Amino acid sequence: MELNPRQEHIVEIVKSDGPITGEKIAEQLNLTRATLRPDLAILTMAGFLEARPRVGYFYSGKSSSQLLTEKFKKYIVKDYQSQPVILKSNVTVYEAICSIFIEDVGTLFIVNEDNELVGVCSRKDLLRASMAGQDIHTMPVNIIMTRMPNIVLLRENDLVLYAARQMIHKEIDSIPIVREKDNGKFEVTGRISKTTITKLFVSLFD
Amino acid sequence: MELNPRQEHIVEIVKSDGPITGEKIAEQLNLTRATLRPDLAILTMAGFLEARPRVGYFYSGKSSSQLLTEKFKKYIVKDYQSQPVILKSNVTVYEAICSIFIEDVGTLFIVNEDNELVGVCSRKDLLRASMAGQDIHTMPVNIIMTRMPNIVLLRENDLVLYAARQMIHKEIDSIPIVREKDNGKFEVTGRISKTTITKLFVSLFD
Repeated sequence: MELNPRQEHIVEIVKSDGPITGEKIAEQLNLTRATLRPDLAILTMAGFLEARPRVGYFYSGKSSSQLLTEKFKKYIVKDYQSQPVILKSNVTVYEAICSIFIEDVGTLFIVNEDNELVGVCSRKDLLRASMAGQDIHTMPVNIIMTRMPNIVLLRENDLVLYAARQMIHKEIDSIPIVREKDNGKFEVTGRISKTTITKLFVSLFD
Repeated sequence: MELNPRQEHIVEIVKSDGPITGEKIAEQLNLTRATLRPDLAILTMAGFLEARPRVGYFYSGKSSSQLLTEKFKKYIVKDYQSQPVILKSNVTVYEAICSIFIEDVGTLFIVNEDNELVGVCSRKDLLRASMAGQDIHTMPVNIIMTRMPNIVLLRENDLVLYAARQMIHKEIDSIPIVREKDNGKFEVTGRISKTTITKLFVSLFD
């Protein structure tokens, strides 16, 4: 939502002089209270200003993008997650590559015998291994995976926005969603990827 | 922006009876014109209704998500593109894998001697080749790439939103941005990926 020049002016006045009554704002702008009423209603409804009876208008401290961010605070990863593809750490690199194709994913999560997360294996990890000229039919995937604790994790209630930021800043394509066990280890319950974010982006406009 | 029940009601009235004057809307709601004025101002400014002097209010036919989409119509791929990584079609699969690591991308664009796009090569194409047990040091990349015309293309002025939809529907991670030559072939000028979309998503809230 874009503000018109008068609305911008009102926000500036409330920012510097708030709390301030509608009458005082009208005086400063040399307008009647009635003329200002629609603008004040718009600014209050859109969340730029807050109004308290008998006190006046406050600046909410929120910019357009902050208000948009608030909307996105409802988007948590558990509502957008995909099924994680999970392999035991003793499977071979060859089997891991097959899983990438069979399951049609870019990242595999590697667990120990107790189903606790021990590593993450990407297409690039697999490519590096197969390029190295070693035997992918015998090499176990735990040799080439990225290991705990060097793994970015998400909890169910983390924001989708946080997940997206992590993927950009850490330069990764996918993050496991985990639940912490009593022993401090993690079970993998879901997955968020750049595909998830792209889908969400598209769905915002459908 | 969320509408309150009275605003929803006004939109419904204008939808079914528009063009309709503010007085007529007020009558239907059993309210005064003055009481309605802020709501009508909000609905008009936010783009839900259109007002024409001496005629009245029209329904713009735009939902919240349509209004959001209009905002995103300003986002075209040339403003968000990354550098494409381009290889000649006679390089080996091994060299292609090296480029994936050196350039830190997921997709390579393959061109002929005249720099015209002939194929696209993904991490999965490279993984499939190295898994097949053939010699990646001698096999040329044009054996394993996806070939023209089976390639999704973007022009500079296509919407970022269109690019995102194509990546989801065609299940690809990256799309070349091309310029058509006089001979009907394409030069690659840029690249849009799911990383681009994730970055844009994050930047909306920063």
